[in-house]
Amino acid sequence: MKLEKFSGANVRISPTAKIGKNVKIGDNTVIYDNVEIGDNTIICNDCVIGEPQNDYYYTPETYENPRTIIGANSLIRSHTIIYADNELGEGLQTGHRVTIREKTVMGVHCSVGTLSDIQGHSVFGDYVRMHSNVHIGHASKIGSYCWIYPYTVFTNDPTPPSEICVGPTVGDYSIVATHCLLLPGVVIGEHCLIGACSMVSKNVADYTVAVGSPAHPVKDIREVKDRETGDPHYPWPYRFDRNMPWRGRDYEEWLNETKK
Amino acid sequence: MKLEKFSGANVRISPTAKIGKNVKIGDNTVIYDNVEIGDNTIICNDCVIGEPQNDYYYTPETYENPRTIIGANSLIRSHTIIYADNELGEGLQTGHRVTIREKTVMGVHCSVGTLSDIQGHSVFGDYVRMHSNVHIGHASKIGSYCWIYPYTVFTNDPTPPSEICVGPTVGDYSIVATHCLLLPGVVIGEHCLIGACSMVSKNVADYTVAVGSPAHPVKDIREVKDRETGDPHYPWPYRFDRNMPWRGRDYEEWLNETKK
Amino acid sequence: MKLEKFSGANVRISPTAKIGKNVKIGDNTVIYDNVEIGDNTIICNDCVIGEPQNDYYYTPETYENPRTIIGANSLIRSHTIIYADNELGEGLQTGHRVTIREKTVMGVHCSVGTLSDIQGHSVFGDYVRMHSNVHIGHASKIGSYCWIYPYTVFTNDPTPPSEICVGPTVGDYSIVATHCLLLPGVVIGEHCLIGACSMVSKNVADYTVAVGSPAHPVKDIREVKDRETGDPHYPWPYRFDRNMPWRGRDYEEWLNETKK
Repeated sequence: MKLEKFSGANVRISPTAKIGKNVKIGDNTVIYDNVEIGDNTIICNDCVIGEPQNDYYYTPETYENPRTIIGANSLIRSHTIIYADNELGEGLQTGHRVTIREKTVMGVHCSVGTLSDIQGHSVFGDYVRMHSNVHIGHASKIGSYCWIYPYTVFTNDPTPPSEICVGPTVGDYSIVATHCLLLPGVVIGEHCLIGACSMVSKNVADYTVAVGSPAHPVKDIREVKDRETGDPHYPWPYRFDRNMPWRGRDYEEWLNETKK
Repeated sequence: MKLEKFSGANVRISPTAKIGKNVKIGDNTVIYDNVEIGDNTIICNDCVIGEPQNDYYYTPETYENPRTIIGANSLIRSHTIIYADNELGEGLQTGHRVTIREKTVMGVHCSVGTLSDIQGHSVFGDYVRMHSNVHIGHASKIGSYCWIYPYTVFTNDPTPPSEICVGPTVGDYSIVATHCLLLPGVVIGEHCLIGACSMVSKNVADYTVAVGSPAHPVKDIREVKDRETGDPHYPWPYRFDRNMPWRGRDYEEWLNETKK
Repeated sequence: MKLEKFSGANVRISPTAKIGKNVKIGDNTVIYDNVEIGDNTIICNDCVIGEPQNDYYYTPETYENPRTIIGANSLIRSHTIIYADNELGEGLQTGHRVTIREKTVMGVHCSVGTLSDIQGHSVFGDYVRMHSNVHIGHASKIGSYCWIYPYTVFTNDPTPPSEICVGPTVGDYSIVATHCLLLPGVVIGEHCLIGACSMVSKNVADYTVAVGSPAHPVKDIREVKDRETGDPHYPWPYRFDRNMPWRGRDYEEWLNETKK
C-alpha cells in the first residue's frame, strides 16, 4: 500500500495506557486512560478505546477512568467505540461502528458485527459470533459458541418504563436468527435454533427449533436437514468449523479433549 | 484524566456560530455557520453540528446555512450529526452516531439513543425518550413523556413510492416497545402501550395496550401488573420518575401544579 | 458558508488514486490505493474510500489494494466506508455512515440510505433506491428501479451456520417495504409489493402484493388504489418520477424509446 492506515496521523494515546508488543493503531484513533491492549492487536482508524463514562462530563477533576482490557490478537475495525470498564478476551474481532458499553465481559475469540450495539452489564462466553446490527440490552447472559444474526434485539424491561432489569439467557451452541426479539428474562437452552422474525416470550428447551411471534417449539433441531445433501445439519459443530477451536479436526474428539 | 476529550485538537467552529458560556467542544468536532449552542452544553468528539443541506453541494456560492439551535445543558455524544435548520430544546441528550435531519423541533429534555435516525420535518414534545436505533420518518408527531424503544420505525408513505407523506401521531405518556412499525397516518392516543414486534395499522384509543401484526387492542393499560409486586404499573408516571420533571415528588401533585 | 466542508483539512489521498475533474473531497476523508473517482463527484467529510480488505492487516508487505470505481456525478455523504474492489456506477448517492463491502456491483443512479450495510458479493441494477438501515447479505441480486425500505434484511444461509450461501433475487420495479426479511434464495418477480413486516419464504410472482410472516399473495398490485384520488397507483412508474430517468415525461413513451 502506498497510503497506510497506520501512519500515526492524529493518533492520541494516554500515558497511562499499556500497549502490548506489535500493536498497530490506526489514524485518528484515541486511547484513553487505563486501557490495556494485548500483544499483536490491531486497532484500526477512527476508534475510541476506553471511552470515559458519564461522570467524566460532569466531574472531570475527580473522574478516574476504570481499567479496560482488550485481549491479544484482536482486530478492532474502524469507528468502533469501546467504553472504559470492559474486559474483552483474546482474539476479539469487531466490524465497523460497533459500540460496546461498560461492564461487558467477553470470553475469547468473540466477534461483534458492524453497527452492533452492546449496551453493557452483560456476560458473553467464548467464540460468540454476533452478526451486523445486533442489540444486546443490559443483564444478558450468552453462553459459548452462540450465533446471533442481524437486527436481533435482547430486551430486559417487562413493564417499560420501570426499574426492573432482567435480561435473556442463551445457552451454548444456540442460534438466534435475523430480526428476532428476546423478551425480558427468557431462557433459551443449549443447541437451540430460533427462526428468523421470532419473538421469544417463553423459555426454550435444549435442542429445540422454535419459530413465530410468539415463538413456539416446532421440532428437534437434530431433524433439520442440510438443504443440499439432505443429511442432518445439527448439532452444527459436526458440520461447521470456520473460526472455531475444533477447526480441521473431529468435533467430538476436540470436545472429549476439552472436557478432560 | 491524563488524556482529555476536549483538548481542542482538530476542532473547527464557524465564525458565525454563537457558543454559550461554559460550553465544551470535543476533538475533531465541526460546527458550521449559524449554529447557536446554549450555556453549559457539552458537544463530544467527532460531531457535526449544523450539517449543511443538499444545496450546499451544488450551489456553494449562494448557499446560506439556516439557523440551528441546541438548547442549554445538553449532552451530545460522539459522532452525532445534527443538520442545520433544527430547533432542539434544553437538556437534550444523544447517544453515539445519532443523525437528526432538518426541520426537527424537539421540546426540552429529550433523549435520542445511539444510532437513531431522525429524518426531520417532525415535532417532538418534552421529555421524549428514544432508545437506540429508532427511525422516525418525516411528518411524525410525538407528544411529551413518550418512550420509543429500539428498532421501532415510523413510516409515512401508504403507497410507496408516492408523493404522499402522512406520518404517525403518538400521544403523551405513550410507549412503543421494541421492533414495532407504525403505518402511515396512524394515531396512537395517550397512555398507550404498543407491545414489542407490533405493526400498528389502525388508531389506538387512550389507555390501550395493543399488540400483534396488525396490532389489536388487548386490554386497558391500568390492568397491567408490576411483575415483582403484583401492583398496577400503569400509568407509569406514578411508578417511575428517573429523568422526569416530577423526580422525587408525588406525580399527581406535580401534575396539578403544572396544570395551573 | 464561512466554514467550508472541503477545506482540505486532514485529507489523505493515495498517489495511485485517480481523481476526476471537479471532484470535491471533504475534510478528514481518506482515499486508499487504486481508487478511481469520476468527474464532478463529491465525497464528503470523514469518508473512507477503497478500504483495504483483511489481508492488509496480516500481510501488509505483499497486499495490493484492488481497483475501486466510483462513477461520475456521485454524492457520497459523510462517514461512508466503501471497500476496495467495488464498482459503483455514475450518479450514486449515499446517506451517512453507509458501509459497502467488496465485490458490490451497482448500476447507475443508485441510492443507499444512512446506516445501510451492503455486505458485498452482490449485484444491483440501475436506479435502485435503498432507504436507511437496509442490510443486504452476500449473493443478493437486485434488478433496476427497485425500492428497499428501512430495516429490511436480505439473508442467505438456510441452515445457519453453514457454508451454503444463496441470496434473494428481486425483479425490476419491485418494492420491499419496511422491516421485511427475505429468506435465502427466494425470488421476487417484477412489479411486486412486499408489505411491511413481512417474512418472504416463498417465491413471489410478477405483479403480486404479498404480506405476512410468512408472506402470502393477497392481490394483484394493479388493484391497489391511491389513498387520496382512488385511482390505481401501480405500476408506480406511471405515477412517480422523482429521480427517475423518465422524469417529466410519459413513462410509456420513455419505456418504448429505451427498448429500441
